[in-house]
Amino acid sequence: MFIGDIERFLKEDLGYNDISCHLVPDEESDAIIFAKEDCVLAGISIASSIFAYLGINANAKFEDGSSIKKGNVIFDLNGSPVSILQAERLVLNFLGHLSGIATVTRKCVNLVEKHSSVTRVACTRKTTPGIREHEKMAVIAGGGDSHRFNLSDSIMIKDNHVKMIGVEAAIASAKKKASFTQKIEVEVESLEDALLAAENGADIIMLDNMAPGTIIGTVSSLRNASISEHILIEASGGINENNLEDYANTGVDVISMG
Amino acid sequence: MFIGDIERFLKEDLGYNDISCHLVPDEESDAIIFAKEDCVLAGISIASSIFAYLGINANAKFEDGSSIKKGNVIFDLNGSPVSILQAERLVLNFLGHLSGIATVTRKCVNLVEKHSSVTRVACTRKTTPGIREHEKMAVIAGGGDSHRFNLSDSIMIKDNHVKMIGVEAAIASAKKKASFTQKIEVEVESLEDALLAAENGADIIMLDNMAPGTIIGTVSSLRNASISEHILIEASGGINENNLEDYANTGVDVISMG
Amino acid sequence: MFIGDIERFLKEDLGYNDISCHLVPDEESDAIIFAKEDCVLAGISIASSIFAYLGINANAKFEDGSSIKKGNVIFDLNGSPVSILQAERLVLNFLGHLSGIATVTRKCVNLVEKHSSVTRVACTRKTTPGIREHEKMAVIAGGGDSHRFNLSDSIMIKDNHVKMIGVEAAIASAKKKASFTQKIEVEVESLEDALLAAENGADIIMLDNMAPGTIIGTVSSLRNASISEHILIEASGGINENNLEDYANTGVDVISMG
Amino acid sequence: MFIGDIERFLKEDLGYNDISCHLVPDEESDAIIFAKEDCVLAGISIASSIFAYLGINANAKFEDGSSIKKGNVIFDLNGSPVSILQAERLVLNFLGHLSGIATVTRKCVNLVEKHSSVTRVACTRKTTPGIREHEKMAVIAGGGDSHRFNLSDSIMIKDNHVKMIGVEAAIASAKKKASFTQKIEVEVESLEDALLAAENGADIIMLDNMAPGTIIGTVSSLRNASISEHILIEASGGINENNLEDYANTGVDVISMG
Amino acid sequence: MFIGDIERFLKEDLGYNDISCHLVPDEESDAIIFAKEDCVLAGISIASSIFAYLGINANAKFEDGSSIKKGNVIFDLNGSPVSILQAERLVLNFLGHLSGIATVTRKCVNLVEKHSSVTRVACTRKTTPGIREHEKMAVIAGGGDSHRFNLSDSIMIKDNHVKMIGVEAAIASAKKKASFTQKIEVEVESLEDALLAAENGADIIMLDNMAPGTIIGTVSSLRNASISEHILIEASGGINENNLEDYANTGVDVISMG
Amino acid sequence: MFIGDIERFLKEDLGYNDISCHLVPDEESDAIIFAKEDCVLAGISIASSIFAYLGINANAKFEDGSSIKKGNVIFDLNGSPVSILQAERLVLNFLGHLSGIATVTRKCVNLVEKHSSVTRVACTRKTTPGIREHEKMAVIAGGGDSHRFNLSDSIMIKDNHVKMIGVEAAIASAKKKASFTQKIEVEVESLEDALLAAENGADIIMLDNMAPGTIIGTVSSLRNASISEHILIEASGGINENNLEDYANTGVDVISMG
Repeated sequence: MFIGDIERFLKEDLGYNDISCHLVPDEESDAIIFAKEDCVLAGISIASSIFAYLGINANAKFEDGSSIKKGNVIFDLNGSPVSILQAERLVLNFLGHLSGIATVTRKCVNLVEKHSSVTRVACTRKTTPGIREHEKMAVIAGGGDSHRFNLSDSIMIKDNHVKMIGVEAAIASAKKKASFTQKIEVEVESLEDALLAAENGADIIMLDNMAPGTIIGTVSSLRNASISEHILIEASGGINENNLEDYANTGVDVISMG
Repeated sequence: MFIGDIERFLKEDLGYNDISCHLVPDEESDAIIFAKEDCVLAGISIASSIFAYLGINANAKFEDGSSIKKGNVIFDLNGSPVSILQAERLVLNFLGHLSGIATVTRKCVNLVEKHSSVTRVACTRKTTPGIREHEKMAVIAGGGDSHRFNLSDSIMIKDNHVKMIGVEAAIASAKKKASFTQKIEVEVESLEDALLAAENGADIIMLDNMAPGTIIGTVSSLRNASISEHILIEASGGINENNLEDYANTGVDVISMG
Repeated sequence: MFIGDIERFLKEDLGYNDISCHLVPDEESDAIIFAKEDCVLAGISIASSIFAYLGINANAKFEDGSSIKKGNVIFDLNGSPVSILQAERLVLNFLGHLSGIATVTRKCVNLVEKHSSVTRVACTRKTTPGIREHEKMAVIAGGGDSHRFNLSDSIMIKDNHVKMIGVEAAIASAKKKASFTQKIEVEVESLEDALLAAENGADIIMLDNMAPGTIIGTVSSLRNASISEHILIEASGGINENNLEDYANTGVDVISMG
Repeated sequence: MFIGDIERFLKEDLGYNDISCHLVPDEESDAIIFAKEDCVLAGISIASSIFAYLGINANAKFEDGSSIKKGNVIFDLNGSPVSILQAERLVLNFLGHLSGIATVTRKCVNLVEKHSSVTRVACTRKTTPGIREHEKMAVIAGGGDSHRFNLSDSIMIKDNHVKMIGVEAAIASAKKKASFTQKIEVEVESLEDALLAAENGADIIMLDNMAPGTIIGTVSSLRNASISEHILIEASGGINENNLEDYANTGVDVISMG
Repeated sequence: MFIGDIERFLKEDLGYNDISCHLVPDEESDAIIFAKEDCVLAGISIASSIFAYLGINANAKFEDGSSIKKGNVIFDLNGSPVSILQAERLVLNFLGHLSGIATVTRKCVNLVEKHSSVTRVACTRKTTPGIREHEKMAVIAGGGDSHRFNLSDSIMIKDNHVKMIGVEAAIASAKKKASFTQKIEVEVESLEDALLAAENGADIIMLDNMAPGTIIGTVSSLRNASISEHILIEASGGINENNLEDYANTGVDVISMG
Repeated sequence: MFIGDIERFLKEDLGYNDISCHLVPDEESDAIIFAKEDCVLAGISIASSIFAYLGINANAKFEDGSSIKKGNVIFDLNGSPVSILQAERLVLNFLGHLSGIATVTRKCVNLVEKHSSVTRVACTRKTTPGIREHEKMAVIAGGGDSHRFNLSDSIMIKDNHVKMIGVEAAIASAKKKASFTQKIEVEVESLEDALLAAENGADIIMLDNMAPGTIIGTVSSLRNASISEHILIEASGGINENNLEDYANTGVDVISMG
């Protein structure tokens, strides 16, 4: 993490005069950070750079993506207690928030893997403002796919584009504006639009808000259309931990969740 | 929200060249933002400043703290579709995240109010890095107490301070360093320490990780000690939606949750 | 001090191409910083972090709050003369400005201590924009009380609030909006309002622009009102080094100065 | 002032949740800012940009450099009381601090003008970190000369440069490194060095820590040396309001003060 | 352009006290910006946002990508002459630099179009630090392809990756780490590696430093391999305006230049 | 270079998740940076601070201003390959861009030196936004004069000032507003204005858009006017590598180019 970001986050938690951190004698001492519950870890490199910034020796016992148990020691620390108290809450907030994301992601990935060896689980841009980068890395730590990072990464043609100018015109316009290094994804709500998107050169077709049964049929029709061999198919909309398994054997390449 | 922050958040979501926002003709048009589920609203002023920054006319139909129903229109918008698409995800991420916090807070506040008319529900510093300010305002929107914003707001004497130098020395040291405008809170795990803290002039006593039954006894002893008339008593540690009601009639002034 | 701030301050003084710093041969050498007059020191940790940022070994001979004499060596330095010249003016500007504040504060504190062992001297928010944090720490180094850091630290009900909605309504409104961790201070100009504030639960009562004689009477009335045992009383408005002693034995807890 | 700076300064004063600003009903209203004592004004454009940023209509009745009387109205304001309360302290801190500088400068300029119609009064780089730009403009408002803004503006050869490598080598080195658009100033402590500096092409000669009598002789010798017709002579070091008049008729072009 | 960026760029050009901008009477007046030579325009929206920031009414007569003639008026301006002088150099530096890039790009695109209707001309990450975003938009204005914006946009497997772990392992590793929304490009120097990359699922194959003759053969072999129907082929390395036409009819999809 | 700037530049090139840098095993290894063509070097200290920021040991074999040959090793590197890949493009973009400027400058300086031993070659404010500081240092590395850094460095009276209020009034106004540490330069287009500027105390006279022959006459007239002994004369406008030698023996002190 960049120093400018570390300082911004620390300033938020410390304020101007963190008296309570200075109540104890400032003699070098040891501390540990341990897991309060079973989880999949994420945020280790962020925590490490916060400790390094504050001059604390921190020895990480696990890396991002490790499944750990309640009570496991995550970091051995040695340094000034003032610095350790200053780092404590910020580090715990990152580790807690990101490991939570990694843990849920892993659980979803495992559910899908029971049904399909090729279907990926992806997250979306529904992230907490300011720390998307870190939340995406937590999804990756959990075994998920980070999807697009931002609006400029790849081109997404949404339902309102389609409604306004139609699938063909939308893809043509996107192809003209996009770089050859970018994929073009089209969000469709019907088989017709899905086939149209495939014929017009979409790289990814997102089946939006379709019931699992409809998805199975659409995937089958798309796969039969010779044109769409290399096209990835994504299911999205209203999918959560509870209904995830219903989508896991629809044959899509990717299932994305909020 | 400050312009510098709006620009930082927008940059995260837009990237360098948000082609998909520019696929539609840029003619002034109308749009709405509506609730996808019942909730307590938070984030209205943030959303309004993002819309204003992008030159979109936005008419908020509710204010922070309103209980709204699925389908309710939150904002009427009018402006350039490019700008509306640029604002969309950032605004929804804020509204969604913060209204989620406000909704849970309101639910907890209602649970407590069934048992006590004076006990407050407060949040802690367990917030998402970078947007604490907004999360605290969401707690307030939900009817909760924002607790300290950061380590410099008020003085918190924690268990490790107490272990190292004792309650009396810790309070004496804090009083010397603190401003007269700051309250001093002491985290205790026993009745003895609670009474000691009261005698030495603590403004707030936090009963940490105590069972509801133990809390009732401790509160009663503290209230009987004439010294502690003005002292606020807080229960903290391991309290969640499920066990909240057990703490609601212990007589504490504040129950704080993560 | 955060690196981002050090760099901002250095850039202000160095500009784009500080030729004069590079006129001398860049061979490691020694230097000292010494006091040009008797003073109470402040700014040592700021100076230390500027030296550290520039790779200069700096050995501080005193800490903040020390009373030192003209000619005393404050820092022994060793490093590149280019770096020492780059640090010089910024460090001296901080040490000079902050030690000036600490010295005046100490003088005021000593004046008050001649008359009262409990009355504190506090500063206000009349600080130089951009370095309040450091000026407040200089007040603390001088033995003063830092008062609120900013408008969000504690609640101050000012005369215009009182004029518009009355003491009772203002305190009620503040209590509803404030966290339980914050103190509520009320600025009053009459005994009636002071008593009203006490009865309504103010934590601090500020007697604004009252003559010392009036203050004595008001403090006495407040102390007699059993309700206000725990309330702190502050005198403020038009108090300076010359008339400070007149306020020192009025019995107030705090005297605040600009 | 840039928006980024306004936001940084406001954040310092407002903190995260400025409850007290929101205690009053937010109905558009009028307010004024008036002078608490006689002064020379500075900071009007800064105040104006802060008001503009917060959406307050502000009508300035005077401009920087105006001599105003206690009680004079400086700004007529109209707008939201919340915004006016948010702007208040920051604006007053700037106006107070900068007008103080302008007032002292004007006083010094007037003292010198009694003795000389050509001698300028200049300030130095002894400024408050972070707001040098504004303090320099206040000196200009008071009728003073802003001297160099930073180390890159013009070249200053200091006593330690001279001690290490001699006047000639130092000027030669500076000429090689400097742009033709920059003046070269040499700090000297003796007539010999002053003449040497003049012969080697210095644009400005600063007589450092010389008594007024010595300055008179040195200026006379320099003026007689035909080479130094275009050279400006500056007196510096230990000059303050009390001894300023002693330097005012020494014939120097500039007197600089801390 | 974001306000934070505009302020950073303006500060660089204005410094602390731009006296010369204030030498003229500040009465609203008209001005124009015109082309000093024939060019393809780029930077119009940047210029417009700088003018808007400074309160200048600016009417753009052309848009990015327009071919204009020496003497053509690009902007009609109306506003304060001080503001116009403050904007002038920054706007001209952007317009000049970016239109230069657009003009060269257009020239290259035209050269290629004489030979091929499908081959694109793309730029690389060899940009000026700090303004890549704007330089890429200038390439697009000239009719070129922006290629990747940064290292996270799409995956590029470079020659040193291939040398260290081989084409197959490198692609397998990339596929595991990449999102399904990202394309994978492999840089190869031989037909063998090109075919290997195609078989292993590369989306783009970059033929690095190959002579035009070799490229023709390689493209032909790749096109015949049924696996590589959807694969884009890029030629790169040592291609400039002089030898561009030699590459234009090699059948590649993209020619990239520094 | 400041850490804040390094981080801003790196972020531009790395994006959020630079997968390709992490494809290789992260074992400490060696690398070199070498020259792809003959050039005059610039940017060494920038490159060094980027390497240092990323923890790479970098040994520079040359310093800014060195003439080096194609194939010469500029840096020996040792460190993590991930870090070296992260630094690579940014360092090369700086070295390439700045060495290009230094090389052209050196060529121009050499052309002028064939004709005159006193005439300097200077650059202008026509720089790339955001990195002027570095481009100016590259001009210095090439042996050129950096001219003013920004509008506040020295005072430039331009043709439009002269047209509006005349040479005398413009200089008088400038002298009143400028510090004594600043030079005043006047841009003139005729001998009359040049003499007028000299008589009124200009420090530098810029002959704008004059043909070499006219310049010779103007310089001669100026030099004969006894008043202008210390005045520097600059030729500017439409001078490039091709016609530079025509201006090199006109007797001007400075030739400035875009």
